[in-house]
Amino acid sequence: MRISELSKSAGVPVDTVKYYLRMRLLPEGRRTSATQAQYEQSHLDRLRLIRALTGAGGLSLATTRSILEVLDRRDRPTSTHQLLEQVDQLLAPLGEEPEDTTRAEAVIADMGWDLKITEPGPTSRLAQALAAIDAADFPLDHQAVLDYAHVMQALADEEVASVPDDADAALVRYIVLGTILIEPLLLALRRLALINASARRYSADT
Amino acid sequence: MRISELSKSAGVPVDTVKYYLRMRLLPEGRRTSATQAQYEQSHLDRLRLIRALTGAGGLSLATTRSILEVLDRRDRPTSTHQLLEQVDQLLAPLGEEPEDTTRAEAVIADMGWDLKITEPGPTSRLAQALAAIDAADFPLDHQAVLDYAHVMQALADEEVASVPDDADAALVRYIVLGTILIEPLLLALRRLALINASARRYSADT
Repeated sequence: MRISELSKSAGVPVDTVKYYLRMRLLPEGRRTSATQAQYEQSHLDRLRLIRALTGAGGLSLATTRSILEVLDRRDRPTSTHQLLEQVDQLLAPLGEEPEDTTRAEAVIADMGWDLKITEPGPTSRLAQALAAIDAADFPLDHQAVLDYAHVMQALADEEVASVPDDADAALVRYIVLGTILIEPLLLALRRLALINASARRYSADT
Repeated sequence: MRISELSKSAGVPVDTVKYYLRMRLLPEGRRTSATQAQYEQSHLDRLRLIRALTGAGGLSLATTRSILEVLDRRDRPTSTHQLLEQVDQLLAPLGEEPEDTTRAEAVIADMGWDLKITEPGPTSRLAQALAAIDAADFPLDHQAVLDYAHVMQALADEEVASVPDDADAALVRYIVLGTILIEPLLLALRRLALINASARRYSADT
């Protein structure tokens, strides 16, 4: 297809498509003349992914580029699992490393989670969340954390089971977008559910 | 207690305590001389809350001040439920209003949620999350959203049921901190659970 069709199908202005081409976020098309090129379905998929990451996903162009680079490295031997780990790493750059990951490791051990990861990122993120709860003297014991973990595990098991079996583009979209887009959905639903639950308990107490 | 004890008990440097006093985030103590004042348990509670909100909670001083103002307005007739709604509003200022809240309203209706709210914020947030998922062509049907909603409802019911019955300071801390601090915990646990689930499914596919 020509750039105008590509632009229309993806819902991205032609100027933006040209900008992505110049930035090499989008690979060049096949030249058919000095001023024209042909684009394939793969260009359209890539363009939709960029739009989803930068628009709906709220990622910066720099993070989007890093994610695309991870995805492009798939020709080298990378398992789907390593891919998920790399994407996870990119999506939430950590601030300070937490000093103490003992509690986080205890949660992971008690959940029987065998993560097969090489980077400390995901564990550190849990340690940071737990440290914040501690610092605020918020009462949440180990068992309560495990209760949350079991709920998240049930969700994750279903999510990973629902990933289509055919590898590559579809799978990658699934993993990246599922990670980015489901998080705001979960938090929005939790806020609503909290308001509903508090309405039942408290709305008469004015 | 004196300011030095207050500082030590809360783990906040004396200079910072003085800054909070000047900014009126913390009410003045009872003057005992020209240069000394006495502080009560209520000062310590407030200081710990500020520390938790600005530190662990990652809120700006401006948002912290707004939250404290909402809490301070409790002498006027405000139900606990309205308090939760106001805090929710402050914590996640929305960007653009979503054009279409039909799907979000359908989720709320199908969940039988009776929110008793006056602001559109929580519904808009859900509409935004759903619009992002749509924009990315991520396959997630209405039933799948309801499945997530049921999981969040079960969590919220337990969370609200666990709020202590005695009103005021403790309750307020519970609601505000529970909303702020549990969100990063849930997301950290979900990422780990996803990695674990993908390790089981994919780690052999290198």
